[in-house]
Amino acid sequence: MDKKNALYAQSGGVTAVINASACGLIETARKHKDKIGKVYAGRDGIIGALTEDLIDTSKESASAVAKLRHTPGGAFGSCRYKLKGLEENRAEYERLIEVFKAHNIGYFFYNGGGDSQDTAHKVSQIGDKMGYPVVCVGIPKTVDNDLPITDNCPGFGSVAKYVAVSIKEAALDVRSMAKTSTKVFIMEVMGRHAGWIAAAAGLAAEQEGDAPHIILFPEITFNEKKFLSKVKKSVQQYGYCVIAASEGVRNKEGKFLAEAGTTDAFGHAQLGGLAPMLAQMTKDELGYKYHWAVADYLQRAARHIASKTDVTQAYALGKAAVDLALKGKNAVMPTIVRKSDKPYRWTIGEAPLAKVANVEKMMPRSFITRDGFGITEPCRRYLEPLIRGEEFPPFRHGLPQYVTLKNVAVPKKLTKKFKV
Amino acid sequence: MDKKNALYAQSGGVTAVINASACGLIETARKHKDKIGKVYAGRDGIIGALTEDLIDTSKESASAVAKLRHTPGGAFGSCRYKLKGLEENRAEYERLIEVFKAHNIGYFFYNGGGDSQDTAHKVSQIGDKMGYPVVCVGIPKTVDNDLPITDNCPGFGSVAKYVAVSIKEAALDVRSMAKTSTKVFIMEVMGRHAGWIAAAAGLAAEQEGDAPHIILFPEITFNEKKFLSKVKKSVQQYGYCVIAASEGVRNKEGKFLAEAGTTDAFGHAQLGGLAPMLAQMTKDELGYKYHWAVADYLQRAARHIASKTDVTQAYALGKAAVDLALKGKNAVMPTIVRKSDKPYRWTIGEAPLAKVANVEKMMPRSFITRDGFGITEPCRRYLEPLIRGEEFPPFRHGLPQYVTLKNVAVPKKLTKKFKV
Repeated sequence: MDKKNALYAQSGGVTAVINASACGLIETARKHKDKIGKVYAGRDGIIGALTEDLIDTSKESASAVAKLRHTPGGAFGSCRYKLKGLEENRAEYERLIEVFKAHNIGYFFYNGGGDSQDTAHKVSQIGDKMGYPVVCVGIPKTVDNDLPITDNCPGFGSVAKYVAVSIKEAALDVRSMAKTSTKVFIMEVMGRHAGWIAAAAGLAAEQEGDAPHIILFPEITFNEKKFLSKVKKSVQQYGYCVIAASEGVRNKEGKFLAEAGTTDAFGHAQLGGLAPMLAQMTKDELGYKYHWAVADYLQRAARHIASKTDVTQAYALGKAAVDLALKGKNAVMPTIVRKSDKPYRWTIGEAPLAKVANVEKMMPRSFITRDGFGITEPCRRYLEPLIRGEEFPPFRHGLPQYVTLKNVAVPKKLTKKFKV
Repeated sequence: MDKKNALYAQSGGVTAVINASACGLIETARKHKDKIGKVYAGRDGIIGALTEDLIDTSKESASAVAKLRHTPGGAFGSCRYKLKGLEENRAEYERLIEVFKAHNIGYFFYNGGGDSQDTAHKVSQIGDKMGYPVVCVGIPKTVDNDLPITDNCPGFGSVAKYVAVSIKEAALDVRSMAKTSTKVFIMEVMGRHAGWIAAAAGLAAEQEGDAPHIILFPEITFNEKKFLSKVKKSVQQYGYCVIAASEGVRNKEGKFLAEAGTTDAFGHAQLGGLAPMLAQMTKDELGYKYHWAVADYLQRAARHIASKTDVTQAYALGKAAVDLALKGKNAVMPTIVRKSDKPYRWTIGEAPLAKVANVEKMMPRSFITRDGFGITEPCRRYLEPLIRGEEFPPFRHGLPQYVTLKNVAVPKKLTKKFKV
């Protein structure tokens, strides 16, 4: 194979470890300078690829690249921009190939979730047809852990750890105060469709009676009566009740609870999310004093409490993507394959992009307790290894030291502009 | 002095390091068994003292006590229960003295904020008058950092670190996504009256352009027009805008902004706090996509990212309280005295409770930039040392290992019950 350049792009919501995948990819590519010329990155993800706004990562020092391993967010920028279907907007795919040609791109690495793997899959097919074959490799990334085939997904383990640690700590606070003050604490976590993140909160409960006492999953239809009864029982039994609620909880009409509550009878938009709504419900119906938290971006950016397993796997998948590309494997995605739970052992596998694209992996019902409010032992066995280990970033003056890259632009070669 | 027992009670909202003070106190008392018999703790704070519901800390192993240093929350329970004035409810104070007499309590340690120091002060006076003198020593604690005389307050440094780290991380996330997605991120932090916690977010900005771009203090009247103009400017200049908002922000009528927004024109209660309200404001007026987070208890319970300075000082103040008591110093509170900023050096001082009680320390105006949206260099110089250093708790299976004490009850000696 001729020496070609590589293009790497980050896609969709970023995570605490997506840059660790970038780190693994760039460091590995630099070891194969005979095969891979430069690694370019799309500025703001695929938008940079379409607009020929590329970043030359060869301008970054080895030390700066190494720091990507412990830097959250997306170092080159990401975007929420889904390429349309081939038939609907062939122009976008043709433009990508044009940009690839202009910059001698032989490898395309797309680091993202289900949609992105779908895009990578389409690109992998069209290159051939257009007479400019490109090796396309997807790299899994999503805090939601909802990609199929791979045992778990980089980004998830760190959110899981953040959520479990945070709810464990907040529960100690509530427990101290419950006698005269707050009795109900609700933490809203991410997960619109799959309850993996909410499930991770369950890891905080190491002994009978430990918080969280209630987990609300998107997979389980919300039942107000059952919920309130469980809250009351928990307060009676333990003195307090800690709840982890997935933002994706729905009512029996299939509507998001949080959305259902956003407009009042007069059509006025109401503020706030699911947590304040559930809190108000427990106050109105049971009279308990409450507190609530919405971690939002804090949870997926919390590199300071990242899971070492997660960081290690994110890096390994970035490296594996290059290894697969060098073998000429097109239209694949490296995956995590679990070999055993205890001790936890895993290896890298691969999946065809065709099978990954647009498939969402929900929590199996067997991972949720019969009453719908907790996690089962098999779920715990699955989740536990994923939050294992700490890999703290370096600190200076009390703050983690994260890298901001130079992100030097690659000179444009095309005269035609492309509007996204 | 005869050998007397000691009573320790935690009061008000708990923190990530209040147990470190308890640890310092108990470990030091155990070294003075010639002078101090047992250390009892009030179960759920002063309520335990009033209802004679005492915990015998001598039943805890040295190892369990040592673990208090890294355990958040209040290990013996705390409460929001303010003793009334001496004239209004003398019975409460008389009851305390009765309990003290019954259990041979010679030392009373009250670990809390302004209200608690006021209570400790009253107890210190009444004991003498009632013919049962008790040495009363206050131990400072409040995440709000609003106690006078002491340079800073245990609990604050760790919240400050949590807030600065969290907003730094979330900002990297927003920055990655700003091209096509979220442009405004708002993090609501604690601080109803004093803006110290919000100010700490400012430490995250290490270079020009760094987040947070706007800090909203309770000390500065909210001006919607100026705020929106600053948000717009930040988005234009940096591509995004990160805001740290103190829950205590008020409008020009002196009303909490969050409360002002809780009822709509039709008198319907609205859900949510300040952050979603500000977010909606930026969306309505400027059209930016937003995200918001409310950390609530997570911030004051986050022992996993506690400041080492804070932990060290919390422990030192617990120890100092015993040292003062053994010297027979009544009605005092050990304080932190800053000797220099760079290098940061501090020592333990003492303040009379009479001067501490019920005084709130606000942010000086000179700590806030002229436009009211940021912190000045003197503020940064003051805050920086307080978040310095890490003292991570031990981890097992990916989770911090916090101790739950046995909390064995002391047999009751009084026949009379007391209703709180």
